[in-house]
Order: sequence, then C-alpha cells, then structure tokens
Amino acid sequence: MITVALAKGALLKDSVTRFAKAGLDFSAVLDPINRQLMVPSSCGRARALLVRNGDVPVYVAYGQAQLGVVGYDVLKEHKLQVANLVDLGFGECHMAVAVKATSMYKHAADLPPHCRVASKFTNCARSFFDDLDLPVELVHLTGSVELGPITGMAEAIVDLVATGRTLRENGLIAIEELFTSTARLVGNPTSLRLDRGELQAIVEAVRSEKKLNYFDS
Amino acid sequence: MITVALAKGALLKDSVTRFAKAGLDFSAVLDPINRQLMVPSSCGRARALLVRNGDVPVYVAYGQAQLGVVGYDVLKEHKLQVANLVDLGFGECHMAVAVKATSMYKHAADLPPHCRVASKFTNCARSFFDDLDLPVELVHLTGSVELGPITGMAEAIVDLVATGRTLRENGLIAIEELFTSTARLVGNPTSLRLDRGELQAIVEAVRSEKKLNYFDS
Repeated sequence: MITVALAKGALLKDSVTRFAKAGLDFSAVLDPINRQLMVPSSCGRARALLVRNGDVPVYVAYGQAQLGVVGYDVLKEHKLQVANLVDLGFGECHMAVAVKATSMYKHAADLPPHCRVASKFTNCARSFFDDLDLPVELVHLTGSVELGPITGMAEAIVDLVATGRTLRENGLIAIEELFTSTARLVGNPTSLRLDRGELQAIVEAVRSEKKLNYFDS
Repeated sequence: MITVALAKGALLKDSVTRFAKAGLDFSAVLDPINRQLMVPSSCGRARALLVRNGDVPVYVAYGQAQLGVVGYDVLKEHKLQVANLVDLGFGECHMAVAVKATSMYKHAADLPPHCRVASKFTNCARSFFDDLDLPVELVHLTGSVELGPITGMAEAIVDLVATGRTLRENGLIAIEELFTSTARLVGNPTSLRLDRGELQAIVEAVRSEKKLNYFDS
C-alpha cells in the first residue's frame, strides 16, 4: 500500500487533481464532511494521509508516507531528508522581505544592522541575511507576521506573498524576493531506492500528467 | 497606552471576561465580524493585541505588549523572558504522555529506549524524558500529533489533553502527566520594573477579580 502525504489547505485541491490525472483518485479527501486523516484512494491501491503543510516532509522523511506534496517553502525551511522529485507548478507564491510602505528601505541591504526581522520562516531568513552579510535579530512568530512592523517590534518581515493583498491591507510592501515557491512532489529516499517500479510509475505519471496503464488494470 | 496580548482561540472568551471584571472591556475582540488585530478597550485606556497562542510571550517579552494571557504550556515550551504573574485558573488541560490503548506501556518509563515520541511540545517532552533518564527520539509535528502512533511513526506522543476525547477517538490513552496547564497573566519584566502603578493596578484587579476605582474615573 502506497501512502501519499497531502497538505491540508491551499494545496489540497490541486494536489488531488494532479493525482487524479495520473490515475489515483483521492477526491474523498475534498469531501467537506470527511474527518478522517487516512483516506483510501478509490482504487484501494493507495491512501492519502492528510496532514498539516509543515508535517508533510516529516511523514515522508520517516517513511510513513512514500510520497508527499508540499510547498517548496516548507522544504527550504525544514531541510528534512526527502527527495524533491517534481515541480508541480501550482501554489505559486514568493518568499519576500517586506517593510512598512512608508519606510525608506528599498532593498534588504538597506536595513540597519541588528534590526529585528519577524518571520515564520526563520531558517530561510537566517540563510538569506547571512548571504547578505547583514546581521539581524530574527523573531520567530507563528502567525500574523505583519503585526511585527505594525507594532514596532520588527523593522521587516520575511513571509510568503501570494497576491500581496495581506501586505497592502497592513500598509506593507515587498522589497526583495528570496525565492519562488511552488508545490513539489517529494519522496522518501529509501523507499525510492528499494522501489520495484510501483513508486516510479506514480512519479512518472504525476510528472507527465498522463494516466498510466498501470493503474487501469 | 497599555497593550494586552490576548491569545486567539480557546482562552479568548475567559480572558475577556476576567479583564472585564477588573474594569477593562475588550469585548469587541469577541465580535465575530472583527478582523482587526489591535482592538481598543471601550474606555480607550488600553488595547488588546490579538495573536496566536504561541506568539503571546513573544510580544510580551519584546515589550510590544506589557501584559498578556497565555497557557502555561506555551510558557513552559518557549521559555521566553516574561514574568508569570497570576494563575487565572481557566483553560485547564494536562500535558500528558499517551500511547495506543492496545499497547503494553503503563508508564512513560516502560517505553523502550530510543523509541520515537511525536509532539508539538518537544522542549517540554525533552525535559521530561531527560528527567526520566530515558533517551527517546523526538519528532516535531505541528498538528494532529495522534497520527504519530496511528501511522506507526512514533510509539508515544506528548500532547495537551483537555477532555480526552481526541485521544479516545484515535484509540490512544494517556499514561502519565507532565504538568497541568492553566491560563496565566504574564508581564514584560522591564515594563513591570518601570511601572508607576498603572500596570500593577491592573494586575491586582485581575488577580482579585475586583474592579478597581482606578478604572472607573
């Protein structure tokens, strides 16, 4: 039985669509009354494990799921031992440095040394500011990061920006992009190495968006 | 202007009630259509900062809020520099070790050395197992920790238990309690030291559940 860890939330619908094209129907997870966290595919050959975005690489790294779909931002932040197999293209957003729209900072390098930067993605932010040789004090928050500059706690934030609406509504503006994030198909390295063709067939079907005969039988 | 960081979610209603008894009316934060994260009290002398449970001690430690209400579990886990002022009594739950109800483990010390333990509270779990002299591999998850034993990833979990319903629904059973958590009034140490009576009056009013004359004028 192949287990696929799917992230609840914004990526779920597109993940289900992409697997459906490849011949694995996990649409039961989209049922609003579904409360189960382990949901079999309609063919019974696989099952989806519904977990939080940040937990997908954990279940894949520990081998409880052989495959998973997760945002590149999470992969970059958590650095767990998973193979990044396919860029699925959907769920595009940008990891960006943002400041108050009224501030004078136009680039990340303009920020004063030792200023405070609030983020949910402190590993990504640490790596970015290290590369800039700009020492900053990172403040880890778990939500509503835009409150950092509003309350005066932080000069800047590092956060995911999709449409930019949340930034605008809070009087903030993105001044520099760290990287673009999209959904990725990831796999457990040991499972892929020991695979006898079954996993690879799914990976190829998802990659090519073609239903493989394999699943028709 | 005094800022009070309040945790969204389970503690919010009781927090508002307790401050109301002390003479500070933050009931506007309970309005379901409120989308603001900074909400003034009805008297205009203070404001509430609505943040996630885990972020309350951050805003208080950095002084963006002079006071805050947060669960003791969060204080224990994050160990930030905030003063633990008043045990407010509500929001009681228990940090507990739980295992599959079908397992043979009756106490945490029965767990096999180097087994895996899944938790959102890995600092609390680390400290507990260190005290037991039991080396375990902690797996940090951000949600649905009960999936750890169900998927076979972990022998046990360390998680907050309120009614025990989630554990029962997932075939798990608590075998040992780490500590009891209740909501706490916390304060920024520097603000408390520099306070000229205003903060202390609020703390005393919240502690005694008596409205102080101070707020009537």
